[in-house]
Amino acid sequence: MSMKWISVLLLLQLSCYFSPGGCGRVLVWPTEYSHWMNMKTILDELVQRGHEVVVLVSSASILIDPNKASAIKFEIFPSSFTKDDMEFFFMKLINRWTDLQKDTFGGLFLHIQEMLREGSDLVEKLCRDVVLNRKFMKKLQESRFDVVLADAVGPCGRPTTLFELMSKADIWLIRTYWDFEFPRPLLPNFEFVGGLHCKPAKPLPKEMEEFAQSSGENGIVVFSLGSMVSNLTEETANVIASALAQIPQKVIWRYGGKKPDTLGPNTRLYEWIPQNDLLGHPKTKAFITHGGTNGIYEAIYHGIPMVGIPLFADQPDNIAHMQIKGAAVRLDLNTISSTGLLNALKTVINDPSYKENAMRLSRIQHDQPMKPLDRAVFWIEYVMRHKGAKHLRPASHDLTWFQYHSLDVIGFLLACVATAMFVIMKCCLFCCQKFAKPGKKKKGE
Amino acid sequence: MSMKWISVLLLLQLSCYFSPGGCGRVLVWPTEYSHWMNMKTILDELVQRGHEVVVLVSSASILIDPNKASAIKFEIFPSSFTKDDMEFFFMKLINRWTDLQKDTFGGLFLHIQEMLREGSDLVEKLCRDVVLNRKFMKKLQESRFDVVLADAVGPCGRPTTLFELMSKADIWLIRTYWDFEFPRPLLPNFEFVGGLHCKPAKPLPKEMEEFAQSSGENGIVVFSLGSMVSNLTEETANVIASALAQIPQKVIWRYGGKKPDTLGPNTRLYEWIPQNDLLGHPKTKAFITHGGTNGIYEAIYHGIPMVGIPLFADQPDNIAHMQIKGAAVRLDLNTISSTGLLNALKTVINDPSYKENAMRLSRIQHDQPMKPLDRAVFWIEYVMRHKGAKHLRPASHDLTWFQYHSLDVIGFLLACVATAMFVIMKCCLFCCQKFAKPGKKKKGE
Repeated sequence: MSMKWISVLLLLQLSCYFSPGGCGRVLVWPTEYSHWMNMKTILDELVQRGHEVVVLVSSASILIDPNKASAIKFEIFPSSFTKDDMEFFFMKLINRWTDLQKDTFGGLFLHIQEMLREGSDLVEKLCRDVVLNRKFMKKLQESRFDVVLADAVGPCGRPTTLFELMSKADIWLIRTYWDFEFPRPLLPNFEFVGGLHCKPAKPLPKEMEEFAQSSGENGIVVFSLGSMVSNLTEETANVIASALAQIPQKVIWRYGGKKPDTLGPNTRLYEWIPQNDLLGHPKTKAFITHGGTNGIYEAIYHGIPMVGIPLFADQPDNIAHMQIKGAAVRLDLNTISSTGLLNALKTVINDPSYKENAMRLSRIQHDQPMKPLDRAVFWIEYVMRHKGAKHLRPASHDLTWFQYHSLDVIGFLLACVATAMFVIMKCCLFCCQKFAKPGKKKKGE
Repeated sequence: MSMKWISVLLLLQLSCYFSPGGCGRVLVWPTEYSHWMNMKTILDELVQRGHEVVVLVSSASILIDPNKASAIKFEIFPSSFTKDDMEFFFMKLINRWTDLQKDTFGGLFLHIQEMLREGSDLVEKLCRDVVLNRKFMKKLQESRFDVVLADAVGPCGRPTTLFELMSKADIWLIRTYWDFEFPRPLLPNFEFVGGLHCKPAKPLPKEMEEFAQSSGENGIVVFSLGSMVSNLTEETANVIASALAQIPQKVIWRYGGKKPDTLGPNTRLYEWIPQNDLLGHPKTKAFITHGGTNGIYEAIYHGIPMVGIPLFADQPDNIAHMQIKGAAVRLDLNTISSTGLLNALKTVINDPSYKENAMRLSRIQHDQPMKPLDRAVFWIEYVMRHKGAKHLRPASHDLTWFQYHSLDVIGFLLACVATAMFVIMKCCLFCCQKFAKPGKKKKGE
């Protein structure tokens, strides 16, 4: 599974009440940042279809904003953390993960293990804030939900294993598709719904549109390091800005840090950008990305080649996928140089194979029997309608490890063979003794 | 794969011409009897959607009738067989297969192997009739087809293996679904389209409807042994008829043999029955079937419990699936008795669990994101639009057997370990000799 478990949503059948054809009650256990942005697309669609959606949100939540006008209901549980604690934790995580690339091979595993432990400690504490809050739990139980939609990156119910988690969910919604993945066998309760949040581009804000149009034939480059990173060290920012200053394209850079000294007149900084609309803009030539699944899918959807600067978690793996499929060039943030970035940009913009490959992936993404969002919603409603999806659950989940590997059968057969051999040997010995004795006797006579 | 390869359709990308969004040219390599009936549903739909469908049909074909009014085009190739040869071959095959159940365990494998060899000899001869017919082949090549839709039970192009066949097809359309199958991992180019031929029941012919209505509360039982078997020995027919005479239901029996002496007044014989319409009739209580995939899917579609009397090929396996899912009772034609059949019928009609399980399978069949026929047509058109489905093809098909099992990697690592151990041992020996010699000298002094 490598890091791909990060991009998994879990559906768990919970209660036993659902009026067929009617509307259901969905309980949501979300995760922060890009995971929430992606999941919210599904929740909005569920609400639109008349379902009641209740999201469990901690009082320390960063991006999940219960005060935003929305038909989604939020149940806020008091947390032992503050929002600052949470942000500090995630920033520390990113910085340490980014530093990993400088680590030795041995140190790498130790550090990753430590970070995963810290991450699961955080989730466990959040989880305790919910399940030990009796009043809150009573309220939830009385609500009689039909389905739980949970982000499996933060499992909550005691310490668990990935195998147990896999066996408990009725349907797994995977946030990728076969334009991103390499074909491999999968169980029938896995649905690939990558790119469910993508949609045709809307018009850009007036000032941004004018800037894009001013690029003429050369077009624009879009640059963002995702919802978690809007800042860089001054040195790195200068290296990047000086490379961007040398390309004939105009650059739209989502950046919240100090304006780099080397920033060229062709580059504009924005605290926030309408990423999907920019990637769908006809002037867009390339996308500089950290390699988050959401951004990669927006690039695939609109057929835009990428320069990947992966930072942490599944991002290096994601960029490796795009690199092998010929739609991206990869750079390392720790060793990034102006020349390196400049060459990477020139390559993906001027070598037509990158655009062709990005367009090929785009055609795969668009040509599906059913839109990914519709498929995700279908299977969530399916679990509600049928009180689970038991017919898609492999029997292997109910086997012990020795049954799974047929060791009980092999053991029994070996025992049979051993018994047969023992009996045969005993018989032979008996025969030998019986027929050999007279001979011996004769000799002895 | 057991016998399930029988129920597979193969899509193979052939030519390099296809106007996107337009209509394509489909070349079809079919198989006889129920396979053809199933495939024709897809072909009719393709024709309806504006595609040109050309079916290769031998002059000895049994069920594939080029003279029937249809928008499907037929290319008849002269065959070294006659229609009688073909019918004789298939009847011999069925009789021998049915007799297998009396066989010893050892003889079983020998006989199955022989029958498979004879079957593939027949297909090979038919195939030679096509590919060695230069004029015919030239005509086909000039037609520039966009896709080949082939029934994989009769592979044609030289002797091949199942593995090679699997790797050559772009998409596999499997004639089952998860109501019939047990969940297991599968590659993403497998689409389960079982039951694509099923549709709501049409009204019955007047006489049949009156007979069905005359059954009152008790309802009717439908009995057919499929498109290949319309006849039984007189003895077996009498055993069956006497059991049927004892049930309170009316029985509609597709039977082309001599009228059994024991036939009760509640049983009517027909040379042909509208099976799907009968299974979808509100009076129908049970289905006595040989366990062909088409019939089983019609029963699943309409939620009718079954009594299975499997004859050959994948039928015993199919009935075993329905038995384990609690929707069928299995009988053996060679040992069938009146009491046995009577009890089986009483069980599936009176024990409510059989009806409940059949209805559960029916709900699974009806509640899919997309209808099976639409999904089958989508993927055929997909292969035409994209000149294949390369992104769904696992890289393992291009590996040799030792690469597939990572033996090259394991071998290399073992070689490294062996080399390292050799070097370490040599070093140790060298050190021992160097430092041990002075000691020895001392002793010798």
